[in-house]
Amino acid sequence: MGHELENTMALLERTPAALDALLRGLPEVWTETNEGGDTWSVSTVIAHLIHCENEDWMPRVRHILHADQTQPFPPLDREGHVRYKGGKTLPQLLDEFARARAKGLEELRGLKLTAQDLGRRAMHPALGSVTLSELLATWAAHDLTHLHQISRIMAHQVREAVGPWVRFLGVMQCAGHSGAA
Amino acid sequence: MGHELENTMALLERTPAALDALLRGLPEVWTETNEGGDTWSVSTVIAHLIHCENEDWMPRVRHILHADQTQPFPPLDREGHVRYKGGKTLPQLLDEFARARAKGLEELRGLKLTAQDLGRRAMHPALGSVTLSELLATWAAHDLTHLHQISRIMAHQVREAVGPWVRFLGVMQCAGHSGAA
Repeated sequence: MGHELENTMALLERTPAALDALLRGLPEVWTETNEGGDTWSVSTVIAHLIHCENEDWMPRVRHILHADQTQPFPPLDREGHVRYKGGKTLPQLLDEFARARAKGLEELRGLKLTAQDLGRRAMHPALGSVTLSELLATWAAHDLTHLHQISRIMAHQVREAVGPWVRFLGVMQCAGHSGAA
Repeated sequence: MGHELENTMALLERTPAALDALLRGLPEVWTETNEGGDTWSVSTVIAHLIHCENEDWMPRVRHILHADQTQPFPPLDREGHVRYKGGKTLPQLLDEFARARAKGLEELRGLKLTAQDLGRRAMHPALGSVTLSELLATWAAHDLTHLHQISRIMAHQVREAVGPWVRFLGVMQCAGHSGAA
C-alpha cells in the first residue's frame, strides 16, 4: 500500500492501548528481564518510545515543515531512554507513553497536512534526503519494530522452558535488531 | 526464568485483549494483506490462534494427563485455520479467540496442576518426548511468536513507504517463520 496518513494514524492511535493490555500487571520476569548483556528490557523499550514521542517524531515533523529542506535533523540522544526511564514503574511508563502519543497525534491532526506538505524534504544525518511522508510511515513502522522486539524479549525468557519446541517457534530464531531511526 | 505456571497464565490471559486493542477497527490495508505469495494475513493468524485453542493446547494438556506417556499426540490439521476463518470478519475472529482462550484458561485453572503433573510426558510426533511443563511454556511462546509475526506482516505493508529508513527497522530484516507447534 502507499503511505496514507489515515492508515498510519489508525495504527499510531492503537499502540499505547495494545501495549497496555499486553504488559500492565505482567510479572516482572517478563518485563524487567532482557536478552542478555546490555540489551533492553520491555520497560526500557517503553521508555525509548516515550523518548521518541518527545524528541523524535513530532520535532522532526516540525523541522521538515519549517526548516530549509537541506537542513539536517538535530542529532538524537542515543541514550535518551535512560532519562525517560529513571526510577519509573512500568505502569507509570505506559501512562506516560499514552499521554505523549495522544499529544503528538493531536498536534499532527491539527497540522491538516496536504499532499504538498507530505512531499517536503529534510536531510537525515545518515540517510540523506527524506520526505515527511517517509517520516510518518517510519513512525508507524517503528511502533511495529518495537512490538516485534518486545515479543522477542519476552519469548527469550522461556527459551529453555519450551524444551524441544524451540525450533518450531519463529520468534526464537529472530536476530533482528533495530538501529536508531 | 524457569517455566512457572502463574507467569505463563498471566501472559495467556492478556493476549486476546492486546490483539483486540491493536487490531480492532484498523484499516484492512493492515489486517487483510500479507507478506506475498501464500503467506498469512493478520486475520489468518487470528484464525490460527482459535484453531490452536480448540484443537491443540488444551486437548494436548488432557492427552498428557490421561494417556500413556509413550502415546503420541493426535495429528494436527495444518490447514485448520481455513476452517476457523471461513467468511468471518476480523472483529468476529477476535471475539471468538477471546472466548476460546477464556474457556481454555478456565479449564486449565480447574485442573490445579501439581509439580508431578507438570513433569508428565507424551510423545510429540516430530519432537519426541515432551513434558506438560514444556507444552504450557510453548503455549505462551506461541502467542509471542504470532505477535512477532503480526508486527512483521503489518510492517511489510509500509516497506516501500518508509523509504531509506527501511534499513534501520529491525522488523524489516526479520525472516523468522514458525513451523507448526
